[in-house]
Amino acid sequence: MSDGTSRFWSDVQPGDTFATEGITITRRDILEFAADFDPQPYHLEPEAAEASIFGGLCASGWHVTAVMMRLLTDEFLAQRIDLLGSSGVRSLRWKKPVFADDTLSSDIAVTGKTPSHSDDRYGYIECDVNVKNQRGDSVILLSTSLIIGTGTEAAHG
Amino acid sequence: MSDGTSRFWSDVQPGDTFATEGITITRRDILEFAADFDPQPYHLEPEAAEASIFGGLCASGWHVTAVMMRLLTDEFLAQRIDLLGSSGVRSLRWKKPVFADDTLSSDIAVTGKTPSHSDDRYGYIECDVNVKNQRGDSVILLSTSLIIGTGTEAAHG
Repeated sequence: MSDGTSRFWSDVQPGDTFATEGITITRRDILEFAADFDPQPYHLEPEAAEASIFGGLCASGWHVTAVMMRLLTDEFLAQRIDLLGSSGVRSLRWKKPVFADDTLSSDIAVTGKTPSHSDDRYGYIECDVNVKNQRGDSVILLSTSLIIGTGTEAAHG
Repeated sequence: MSDGTSRFWSDVQPGDTFATEGITITRRDILEFAADFDPQPYHLEPEAAEASIFGGLCASGWHVTAVMMRLLTDEFLAQRIDLLGSSGVRSLRWKKPVFADDTLSSDIAVTGKTPSHSDDRYGYIECDVNVKNQRGDSVILLSTSLIIGTGTEAAHG
């Protein structure tokens, strides 16, 4: 959809939608992330995981949010949208566990936009993000506010 | 504070507070996480980061939430509290960037609790989490709902 021109805050409108590519999470990915950041039995030990409320070895919820960020980053870079960060999340729900070899993708819907009152280098867009697995089941529902550059000179020094 | 006995949902009360140990985030940590999950210039390239709104190379916000999870996991494991996961986040705000060699720790306050209406193997506690750097500045403010085991037989198969 991108024509090669950078897109700024004024170019993104409520109603815009984006669909990302897919990323497959491997068993090794799950174990490595869990060892670093969330070393609980249901993310590290297959037998303990099978006996847990999740029913099997599953990815840390914060691993899934990190993969979601990779999906969004790749899509925004592909679209040449000047994503500067996020000021926060209004709601985040983990709907289903993510298991080894699940492939995740995201639908993003722009629901609103507001200017920055303190700095004209950026503005905010509100987005709903639906992260789903290969069966189409939502695994994360997120409502967040993203910071998008306005393209003024000062934005990049 | 733990006496070596496992602690379940009934043992955790609104008003309880916990303070975690600290974790230092290195420059290498920042670069590795960003390459995997958030490959944007202000997380990967020092010069682009200095020209950005962050003013220097900083950790992905989702890296900081992952480190927060490690702090919470270690504390809950140390307290032998039977943490089974989280159903979601009511609010999450990134207050300040996290730079290389910052040391993060968390204060956790239990603000409420509700039983599960569908499964007596667990209940919910509501928590406010304040992740702060070595200067005491908040870098993340989080309100979340954690799933805590009740200790019934079925909870672990």
